[in-house]
Amino acid sequence: MATLKLISDVEASPRVAAVFDDIRRTRNSDFINNFWRALAFDPQGLERTWAEVKAVMTAPGSIDPLTREMIYIAVSIANGCSYCVHSHTAAARAKGMTDDQYGELLAVVGLAARTNHLATALQVPVDAAFVAEAAG
Amino acid sequence: MATLKLISDVEASPRVAAVFDDIRRTRNSDFINNFWRALAFDPQGLERTWAEVKAVMTAPGSIDPLTREMIYIAVSIANGCSYCVHSHTAAARAKGMTDDQYGELLAVVGLAARTNHLATALQVPVDAAFVAEAAG
Amino acid sequence: MATLKLISDVEASPRVAAVFDDIRRTRNSDFINNFWRALAFDPQGLERTWAEVKAVMTAPGSIDPLTREMIYIAVSIANGCSYCVHSHTAAARAKGMTDDQYGELLAVVGLAARTNHLATALQVPVDAAFVAEAAG
Amino acid sequence: MATLKLISDVEASPRVAAVFDDIRRTRNSDFINNFWRALAFDPQGLERTWAEVKAVMTAPGSIDPLTREMIYIAVSIANGCSYCVHSHTAAARAKGMTDDQYGELLAVVGLAARTNHLATALQVPVDAAFVAEAAG
Amino acid sequence: MATLKLISDVEASPRVAAVFDDIRRTRNSDFINNFWRALAFDPQGLERTWAEVKAVMTAPGSIDPLTREMIYIAVSIANGCSYCVHSHTAAARAKGMTDDQYGELLAVVGLAARTNHLATALQVPVDAAFVAEAAG
Amino acid sequence: MATLKLISDVEASPRVAAVFDDIRRTRNSDFINNFWRALAFDPQGLERTWAEVKAVMTAPGSIDPLTREMIYIAVSIANGCSYCVHSHTAAARAKGMTDDQYGELLAVVGLAARTNHLATALQVPVDAAFVAEAAG
Repeated sequence: MATLKLISDVEASPRVAAVFDDIRRTRNSDFINNFWRALAFDPQGLERTWAEVKAVMTAPGSIDPLTREMIYIAVSIANGCSYCVHSHTAAARAKGMTDDQYGELLAVVGLAARTNHLATALQVPVDAAFVAEAAG
Repeated sequence: MATLKLISDVEASPRVAAVFDDIRRTRNSDFINNFWRALAFDPQGLERTWAEVKAVMTAPGSIDPLTREMIYIAVSIANGCSYCVHSHTAAARAKGMTDDQYGELLAVVGLAARTNHLATALQVPVDAAFVAEAAG
Repeated sequence: MATLKLISDVEASPRVAAVFDDIRRTRNSDFINNFWRALAFDPQGLERTWAEVKAVMTAPGSIDPLTREMIYIAVSIANGCSYCVHSHTAAARAKGMTDDQYGELLAVVGLAARTNHLATALQVPVDAAFVAEAAG
Repeated sequence: MATLKLISDVEASPRVAAVFDDIRRTRNSDFINNFWRALAFDPQGLERTWAEVKAVMTAPGSIDPLTREMIYIAVSIANGCSYCVHSHTAAARAKGMTDDQYGELLAVVGLAARTNHLATALQVPVDAAFVAEAAG
Repeated sequence: MATLKLISDVEASPRVAAVFDDIRRTRNSDFINNFWRALAFDPQGLERTWAEVKAVMTAPGSIDPLTREMIYIAVSIANGCSYCVHSHTAAARAKGMTDDQYGELLAVVGLAARTNHLATALQVPVDAAFVAEAAG
Repeated sequence: MATLKLISDVEASPRVAAVFDDIRRTRNSDFINNFWRALAFDPQGLERTWAEVKAVMTAPGSIDPLTREMIYIAVSIANGCSYCVHSHTAAARAKGMTDDQYGELLAVVGLAARTNHLATALQVPVDAAFVAEAAG
């Protein structure tokens, strides 16, 4: 259960309905997932968040859409967001993620988690070589 | 400063030296970064961790090496590992990550962090559609 | 489901019952929420935790009670604690949090999450001005 | 050290300089902190992030500016962002946070962290009362 | 619900069945918990993860098996992994964890969480004494 | 650098000095580490936090003092607290942690991090057997 009531289409104010319409148009689908129906209690937050999602996830760019979803999944796992893991795993599949890719994604995520914890445990000092390269 | 003394080449036991050699051979570089020199206090941990890194990050697969590094960076950011952020950002650059890709990577990571927190705040229930798709 | 059995009023030992009574008295309500019924397996942990909650959340101070709840919610979101998000969002509402305030709270939390990830990604060095100010 | 070179005023492109100017105007100060100089490698990310910070942190609303900073600090602590902790603690002080308020803020953050971990440890089920209230 | 279909015994490929058999033999129990049935979609990931769990959790060593489970629980709580908290709390109980030990484990975890947040909030500089000791 | 000035012995108010004295007496050492000198800006927070540390870490109990430190380290790693990792690794060494134990501790922490991320990624449903056992 959410911390508040999800907004159905009939309950949507004109401002909320306009965002729902843009989500449908952009995704070419009638489906509005629960995240937007929950956030709709705050029309301004809804507008801003959707504008950012639309810009970052659907605009042309140098990282392809499926890779963006896989990066999204990786962050959502590390931040422990159940809903986001579900919604972006479904999105990645809809964009063609194969079982092989899913298995490799999880292998990288699991490995990173392991070495993240080890490096933090050992408080490893950053190599001068990395810093020099960064200062370019 | 690390929580222990980093192991230099001359201090390395034969077991540690063998791992350092394999790192050099695999990466085709003489450079051993501090993470391995810190972990070397535990030869078994060093062997296991390097074996996993080698297998996951260098084996052929369906996700290209640069994308693997970008996923690694994403997890390292979310887990707050300074060392890992530095080392894998350097690795991604060495594999050709452009400024455009870096900017887009950070845009996805920042957006995911934002919506992760919002979905957790609202405790959004997972849509039936995502679950049905998962059950395949 | 919890990892252990929740303690009902009839099952409460005198030591646990004394804490439950103080919770009821302090909150002026008969309701004991599940957190305390779960923690009650360890009477000492129950006593210490309740003493801290009572001192920090109900004592007079320079931050008003509703703001304390909003800070509590913010930490609970970032730590990904579903139970705590639910219980403290309910508490904030009981103390008068409006939808406007809730929307603004989430906007700050979401923004902080985004910039936290960006600053960690870029490993931004702390400005000398901040450090000088801190040293006072 | 950052993962990249910070952009000085003389290195700023017109697009970056326009954001720097708006930051100065909005804050009525000549100081541009390192976060923006690091993010400036990606003009679009810089524009979007600053627009969000400006909207969320400086617009009039139902949560006062100091409280917004304290919520920002709370999230930054829980996410382990050193830079953000420094910059927003300095900002809160500039907006009048007293030592009493700072002490109380940390007391709430520390308490929330403790009970977040306990509730997650015990996997406490959400009370029906909280859910009913949420469904309104 | 998982993000994918769990693999039952009859659906298991020979490669997956071999891992399931080794789990049963190692644990001397017919029960295969859901984690392995979910991970089984990726036979290589299943093999690698089980090999690591078997080596780290069941090999003789200088930390006893129950203590290893308690450390596992501590990390799982801090990382907010519900499934892992449940499975390793059950495992710790099966290895003899008493209610007293469970209460003390949670007291240490809760205290650490509290001081972790305070030390991060205050950005406490590491004492020279700790660093000197580490450098040995 | 801390976000505030550390309190030296000569700057300590009587209330702060009393806590410093008790720390010295309890630990049988003249050394006061920086955490307490930073927290001393808030005498009440200092008193409460030290009282909790003293009770949880030094009282007799069913988990030995070294194991308590190792659990503390595990949580501090997962929460990404650099200071706490340093101070509690030093404390564990002072209580006799060997290199073998340190290596095994990190192996468990690294493994838990990996499986935490995998279980969250797959959203593995909790086995009925775990829940039944918990309900006793």
